[in-house]
Amino acid sequence: MATATFSLHPQLAQDTHFVTDLPLCRVLLMNESRYPWFILVPRRADLREIHELDVAERAQLWAESDQLSRALLALFQPDKLNMAALGNMVAQLHVHHIARFQTDAAWPAPVWGKFPALAYAPEVAAQRIRSMQEALRT
Amino acid sequence: MATATFSLHPQLAQDTHFVTDLPLCRVLLMNESRYPWFILVPRRADLREIHELDVAERAQLWAESDQLSRALLALFQPDKLNMAALGNMVAQLHVHHIARFQTDAAWPAPVWGKFPALAYAPEVAAQRIRSMQEALRT
Repeated sequence: MATATFSLHPQLAQDTHFVTDLPLCRVLLMNESRYPWFILVPRRADLREIHELDVAERAQLWAESDQLSRALLALFQPDKLNMAALGNMVAQLHVHHIARFQTDAAWPAPVWGKFPALAYAPEVAAQRIRSMQEALRT
Repeated sequence: MATATFSLHPQLAQDTHFVTDLPLCRVLLMNESRYPWFILVPRRADLREIHELDVAERAQLWAESDQLSRALLALFQPDKLNMAALGNMVAQLHVHHIARFQTDAAWPAPVWGKFPALAYAPEVAAQRIRSMQEALRT
């Protein structure tokens, strides 16, 4: 799939760590240590909404969402997954996948806008990125 | 598709109006007049997460999500669509689809937990339900 004109929105670049590229989506780790929070960004230019993807790309997005969801379950055994495409702040299409726990800071509220992000210590981020890279390879 | 053992969670039943049944999902109108807010509920018993659907059902969920998204665009011309499967409060799998406007009460925040719901006047709800039923038939 062509990726020539894709570039990650600067706000997403600033708020996240790069994890890996799947066939369609870039996988990012949100730099918010309160929750295991990953984001899929389809590597297509000028995308805002899911329905703007063609049928094959949409199927691929949901396959990658499924893959990421299963990786979150395997790595973190959360009480609930939260998945959302919002984009009110950053219009570039991106799909949040968050492992939620009844003991987490925002439960049962959604995570957005609750707290300023609490950045990972670099070595913790690196470990979390590595474990997700491995989970997505299996 | 079998629907024998499906029953809508009482909280969802209380918070919404019935719109229609698509092949997989029940379509509900959230009784919150601030935003055009519809919900898809796959009519399967004991579902909590999207990955619990089999591959064919997942494809059908996303086809119906696409259909609902396009109906929201056609009916309301929103500035942005918001789509989310959260389920921290009501675990039964349900997928929110909300037409958002830069002028709406919660913009740019997500809608959940911002305000107590402002119920529709019955005739406004009835009109909104009819227009969505028609949009989903085309």
